[in-house]
Amino acid sequence: MERKAVSRIPRKKDIAPKQIPYSTIVRLTQYLRVVEKLNDLGISGISSAELCEETRINSFLVRKDLSYFGEFGTRGVGYDIPSLRLELEKILGLTEAHRTVIVGAGNLGTALVHYDGFKEKGFKIVAVFDSDPSKIDKKIGDFVIESVFMLEEYLNTNKDVTIGIIAVPASGAQFIANLLIASGIKGILCFAPIQLMVPDDVVYSAVDLTTYLEIISYYITNPDARRTGDMHY
Amino acid sequence: MERKAVSRIPRKKDIAPKQIPYSTIVRLTQYLRVVEKLNDLGISGISSAELCEETRINSFLVRKDLSYFGEFGTRGVGYDIPSLRLELEKILGLTEAHRTVIVGAGNLGTALVHYDGFKEKGFKIVAVFDSDPSKIDKKIGDFVIESVFMLEEYLNTNKDVTIGIIAVPASGAQFIANLLIASGIKGILCFAPIQLMVPDDVVYSAVDLTTYLEIISYYITNPDARRTGDMHY
Repeated sequence: MERKAVSRIPRKKDIAPKQIPYSTIVRLTQYLRVVEKLNDLGISGISSAELCEETRINSFLVRKDLSYFGEFGTRGVGYDIPSLRLELEKILGLTEAHRTVIVGAGNLGTALVHYDGFKEKGFKIVAVFDSDPSKIDKKIGDFVIESVFMLEEYLNTNKDVTIGIIAVPASGAQFIANLLIASGIKGILCFAPIQLMVPDDVVYSAVDLTTYLEIISYYITNPDARRTGDMHY
Repeated sequence: MERKAVSRIPRKKDIAPKQIPYSTIVRLTQYLRVVEKLNDLGISGISSAELCEETRINSFLVRKDLSYFGEFGTRGVGYDIPSLRLELEKILGLTEAHRTVIVGAGNLGTALVHYDGFKEKGFKIVAVFDSDPSKIDKKIGDFVIESVFMLEEYLNTNKDVTIGIIAVPASGAQFIANLLIASGIKGILCFAPIQLMVPDDVVYSAVDLTTYLEIISYYITNPDARRTGDMHY
């Protein structure tokens, strides 16, 4: 049988995004965190083994995760940090800032406005809303708190806002979610400890702080247990 | 060949805790969330299929996760809600309250003191500390803010405190972590956007809010992508 010449350069795989596991997307953010840190330290390259060690994710998974999006790095050399960072940012949709509103100007909302993590990571807070008349027109950092009754109008005239962060008590969270969804917001991050009802075309995540503590509780209560597998918390 | 009588009642499996995957522990908290919700609604039982639907976790995983800890539920009937809730709480070490300190009495620390999610979930805030002299002796809810220089002494005389929550800026987080660890704290939840160095016998989780937004960013940018697999965010 005739042996065909086969290109040894793997081609970018033509996998539809819907086939990429959710856990891969979570791990991409972990790779990005490491790459950002090394980049800030002025380090220009990282070997595969080092990337695995820094992220505590095994090499099989690292290769598999990245292979969904094409070829990264050079065999036997590793990854160029600035290139890998840019690729990860492209994949995650972070090359342009996501304009973000925060609803809820209590302690949590105020903490979020000041949260270091959002700064320079592509999430630009553009407005802060609250329902409490005594808070409206007061300032948090550079923001004047606006009435939640202006939220729809604001979003209708600022169509480039893509993400809404809900930092109101549980009792008001679904009402705010409905306003955000009706105004065309594509992504919602909710801090209230309830499960929101959102349509399928809206991306929704909930930060459940209790879950973090429960997982810590398990490992405190079972000191012989070792964390194995993916670590998302 | 003689057919032996075999007990059809599966025995509690004798699996050491260290063999239980981390992702199972994460899912146990999701089962607990659903069971709590149904319990609050006065619902006393749930079928396997309903538990899968409510948690959006497939039936194979649900069975596998629970099987690590023995037998729950009745074949063809489902689960008794109060029993399953108690079992999950036992596994996760939640039957006795974890006494918890918060370090950092800024907006985030204040929000955490008031956070509904911790209340009645077995995490009892017992003290709040800050390094800012202007905050010390002021009150947040029922707590008088104490000086961070009193933290070690407090923990040495309150050995039943197991968890420390770090809500200080990134620049001070490792210093606080070192104090907590030196005082025998077993679990740390850190909100500062940095990676802490902690010894192996201390359980440590970081709440990385940027990760949540990056995952939302991916699904907004790739609207055809569907979340598959475990959903932890």
